[in-house]
Formats: sequence, C-alpha cells, structure tokens
Amino acid sequence: MDSGAVCPRFISRYPLVTMAHGGGGKLMNQLLEEMIHSVFKSAEEPWRHDGALLESSSAKMAFTTDSYVITPLFFPGGDIGELSVYGTVNDLAMCGSIPRWISLAFILEEGLPMTDLQKVISSVARAAERCGVQVVTGDTKVVEKGKADGLYINTSGIGVMRSETPFIGPASVREGDAVIISGDVGRHGMAVMSVREGLSFSTAIESDMAPLNGPVDHLLTEGIPVHCMRDLTRGGLASSLNEIAAAAGLGIYVAEEDIPVRGEVKAACEVLGYDPLYVANEGCMVLFVPGAAAGDTIGMLRSFDQCRNAAIIGSVVKRGIAPVTVRTVLGTSRVLDMISGEQLPRIC
Amino acid sequence: MDSGAVCPRFISRYPLVTMAHGGGGKLMNQLLEEMIHSVFKSAEEPWRHDGALLESSSAKMAFTTDSYVITPLFFPGGDIGELSVYGTVNDLAMCGSIPRWISLAFILEEGLPMTDLQKVISSVARAAERCGVQVVTGDTKVVEKGKADGLYINTSGIGVMRSETPFIGPASVREGDAVIISGDVGRHGMAVMSVREGLSFSTAIESDMAPLNGPVDHLLTEGIPVHCMRDLTRGGLASSLNEIAAAAGLGIYVAEEDIPVRGEVKAACEVLGYDPLYVANEGCMVLFVPGAAAGDTIGMLRSFDQCRNAAIIGSVVKRGIAPVTVRTVLGTSRVLDMISGEQLPRIC
Repeated sequence: MDSGAVCPRFISRYPLVTMAHGGGGKLMNQLLEEMIHSVFKSAEEPWRHDGALLESSSAKMAFTTDSYVITPLFFPGGDIGELSVYGTVNDLAMCGSIPRWISLAFILEEGLPMTDLQKVISSVARAAERCGVQVVTGDTKVVEKGKADGLYINTSGIGVMRSETPFIGPASVREGDAVIISGDVGRHGMAVMSVREGLSFSTAIESDMAPLNGPVDHLLTEGIPVHCMRDLTRGGLASSLNEIAAAAGLGIYVAEEDIPVRGEVKAACEVLGYDPLYVANEGCMVLFVPGAAAGDTIGMLRSFDQCRNAAIIGSVVKRGIAPVTVRTVLGTSRVLDMISGEQLPRIC
Repeated sequence: MDSGAVCPRFISRYPLVTMAHGGGGKLMNQLLEEMIHSVFKSAEEPWRHDGALLESSSAKMAFTTDSYVITPLFFPGGDIGELSVYGTVNDLAMCGSIPRWISLAFILEEGLPMTDLQKVISSVARAAERCGVQVVTGDTKVVEKGKADGLYINTSGIGVMRSETPFIGPASVREGDAVIISGDVGRHGMAVMSVREGLSFSTAIESDMAPLNGPVDHLLTEGIPVHCMRDLTRGGLASSLNEIAAAAGLGIYVAEEDIPVRGEVKAACEVLGYDPLYVANEGCMVLFVPGAAAGDTIGMLRSFDQCRNAAIIGSVVKRGIAPVTVRTVLGTSRVLDMISGEQLPRIC
C-alpha cells in the first residue's frame, strides 16, 4: 500500500464528486484507478475482478460487516476512514480470529470535495497497515446531493480462526470470571458529541479509536483462557454487559469506582447530561477471564498503549434480580439497565 | 430461514423506523430480534456474536462487496432486497466460486415504513434461499430523515473456489474465443427508468434480475473451459466488453444483429434516448469460451430459465484500432466505446 499515490491532477480536474463518478463509465473507472486502486494495489491485483481471491491458512474463519455513518466525517482523534477499519478489525478480533482481509464500499454524496475522499482513503490505508489487514475488494456508489452526509462506508472483514483456541463468546462465561476493561469509557462518543455541540473544554477530548487485534493476539498467544470479549461501541459498557449477561444466563456485578473514566469525559457528560457507562468507545473492550488469570491479563494488556488503563471492574455472579448490578461510589447498589432508545445518534 | 416469522405486533407498535432503532439500546435489539434474527436464524446462531463463524471446504475463496442504492426500492420485477443478494452472488459466481455466505448491512432512513423494511427482508431471505447462500452476519444503522432514500443495503459475500477449475478472468481470454451472452440486454435499467419516468408501454418491462450461480455451476461441473465471465451491471454490455478487452490486451468483435434486445426495451430506449448496449442488466452475463465449446455452452445455458435467450454474439480478435468493434445491422463497423459518465443513475 502506498497512501501517497493519489494523482493530484485528477483532483484538480474533478474537485467535487459528481453523479457521473458512479455511473459505470470512464469517469468511474478513472476515479477508481486514480483514487483507490493506486492506493490499495497489491501484487495479486485482486481489485481487477468482480471479487478478490483469497487463500486461508485455516478452514475456520470469522466474517463480519459494519456500515459507518458517523457525522462529522473528521473528528478529534480520527476520521470515518480509520474508524471503518478499526471497527471491523475489532469485531473480528472479538471472535478470537486473526483479522486478514477487508472490503471497502463507499456511498459518496454528489458534491463531496475530492480532497475529503482522498483524506479518508489515506486513513483507511494507514489504519489497515497498522492492523495488518489487506483491503482486497471494494465498491463505489454515488447518490445525489443531500442523500448522504458526505460519505458512508461499509467494511466487511474476514479473519482466520486460531485452531488451538476454544470457543470465545458469552456461552463460555462462567461464575467467578473476572470482568476486565481495557481502557477508560466514553471517550469516542464524547469526542464526537463535543464537536457536534460546539463545546470546548480545557482539555480537548480525543476519540479512543484504536485497533484491539494486537492486544488480543498477545493474550491468546500467551495462553490466557479468555472466555468472552466484546468491544464497546453503540450503547457503551452498559449495553455490552447486559447483552453478555443475558446470553450467558448469569449476573454481572461491577464497581463504579473501578471503571476508568477520564476527568474531561466526566465533565462533558455532566454538561450534556449523559452517563459515561452508556457512551461509546471505539478502542476499548470488556473481557471475561477466569479470576486466577486476571492479574496476568491486566499486565499483558497494559503493555499496549491503547490498553494502558486496563482494570478489573467486577466479576460474574449468579443471576440475581437484574442481569447487571453496579456498586455506586456511595456504596449502594443499582441496576445497570440497557438503555431504551438512542442516546447519541450517528457516532459510528 | 422462515420468511414469515416477523412479529406483527412489533410492526403495529412501531410503524416507522426511528433514530432510536439504531441507537444500540433495547429498541435496536428489539428491531434486530423481531425483524431480522427471526428470519435468518440458523442452527449455529451466528448472529449473536460480533461476527459469524464459518467453515470452508476449501482454503481458496472469493470475496466481494456491493452497496445497493437503487431508487425506487420496489420496481417491476423485483426490489432492492433480491437485487442485493443476486448482485453479490453473481459477482462471486463470475470469479468461478460457489457462493456460500453473505452479510447484510442496512442503512435505514428515519421514517421508513416498517412494512417496507419487512418486505425487503423477506425478499432477501427468499433470494438467498433461491441461490443457496446463507445470510450469516449483519449490521443496522439509522440516519435522519432525508439522509438516505428509504434504505441502502450493503451485502458482502464469500464463495468457495472449485479446486479443479483453472483461473477464470480477462487474463485467460484468447484470440478465437467465442463471446456469448446469456440473455437479452438492457432489461433491468429500462424497467427502473420506465417507472421513474412514469412511462407505460403496451408490454410492461420487468427487470431481468436473477441469480447466475446455477448456470455457471452447471457449465463448470460439465467441464466447459470458461475463460472469463462478467455479469452486466452499470455501464451495460459495452462497458464490460471494453474492460475485458483492455485487461486482456485483445480486440472484441461483436455483431449488433446477434445481440438479443426485447422489442419493448428497444422501444423504451428510443423514447428515452438510450443505447441498449449501455443499459444495465442484473441477471445476464457475457462469457468467453474456446470457439469449439460455444455450441455446448449455448445448449447448457438455454436449459436455465434466466438464460433461455443465450446467444453467440462475436469473437475475440487481434487488437485493432479500438478494443471493441461492432458490426451494425447495416453491415458497417463502429467502435463501441466506453461511456464517459453516467447514463442511468442509481439503478443498482
């Protein structure tokens, strides 16, 4: 991949995306050649066909898809391009697979500045390189002005399953498991909301967006018997814990004071009226491991920059009156329910 | 799959899609459970995780992605749901693979009637069953009213490569190959355009939308040495021939009178000022096979309903002044160039 290979002449000739760039003719081919193929070209030239040809080292694979409709496209700490790679890579990592290949499908809005598209494509390339995944196939559509917010991205991904790893998922969670979080909560959602609301704080909030496949790979290679992992996105920590508790048929008890939240995130949440436990991350996961492995897990996670705030936040218990209970800083207990509707629209 | 399993109470309670249906909370989970998981549930429950777990019978696979932004969502002969399955299945078949798994990602517009979503989901399920592919993973986002046209779909697909089949693609095309078309051209594009333009003809034009994996499977199983296949979508026959000729470094010579076009499609093209050779199909492909195999290929194709108009339309020649030349019905020759911009926006 060569993220600097986009042709400047193409951009000066077509400063804005037009409907013709999605019409299947010469202009579309030019857009693909100059803006996309030149960046993602590989030895096998997989982009030239209707699909890419892959060769997997294992018959068992993970497959996932996500569309990204975040607004704004560029926000403190990243942009929709990186997000669309990390989000899909993290989903693959959460299944216990090694992320290998991703697809890249754009829905572009007529009138999008071509330089914005170029920035997003460079971000995709950079992020893919950081994660060790290859962008092997793609698609581009153009819709009329007003029919999208600049651009939407879909990435789908394929990961190769490790043959030696037992099933990782809610069904493997056991009573007594430690609940570990890999970082501080709510940073991505509040970074996006603070720019949208035009807020400025003494310390700017940047998205925590980051790939988690490196840390996961390290844990599994070192033999940590991870029972379940989930990256925190829409709905935040509260939703993930509720989903896992419900699927496992067990209870989860967490201590509020042990859940890392940055001061500026807490402040922004107070101003805007959000509970950080419901606010999205994009580079943070919750892990369930046997209690005895919790210390080693924390130690390994903290060796990665994106996990340096990893902490044990609770444990798995018998199912009580509610799936998830939280001990507040005042020492009382409260039910941590799943949120009903949307708290933060369009943050991924 | 059980396409009748959607809960009617959910629809009467939520007649329209709201932003909250994409927020990551209870309402989104309910939408997924009632509308989507209930239809695509499978023994392995793959939808419950961040990704699906697959087991391939071969290490070699094909991977493709496509977003569908067609307007209107429902058109004569089909809807965006079926289209999103056939389009991706056909891309996988064109690589010579056996389509197996697809992902299904929705971008829904706030205010979309829930019954429209239900119809589309049923169509996806029916189409997947017809093609023999499994919908194994998905994603749902909601954007504000006006920010999409009802809904956009992305499907990505994985196919398993046949171990015995040699490489199928432009690089395998040889001088002397017969150029075969599997059906009549331009029907999908003109079906969509005639409803958009409010035209009515004595014979209604229906989209030719259909899966091509069945016919392809038959040809390859019977040992037809197919050199290259391409399904005709955006840009029509002319664009596909130009792309293949350019990639193969050879010339293609076709006879206009041999290219099947239905009378009503020809009439609609004349009224609206289109050339049918540039108008999209969604259930038609062009194939390149050695001249000696052309007769058998035609015979096998015609045994399938969607290919009963299959015809030999030309042959591969040395590269002349242009990649593609067409002998007109008047006996003269003209260059069949690639179209520059868009002729028919948003037909897939």
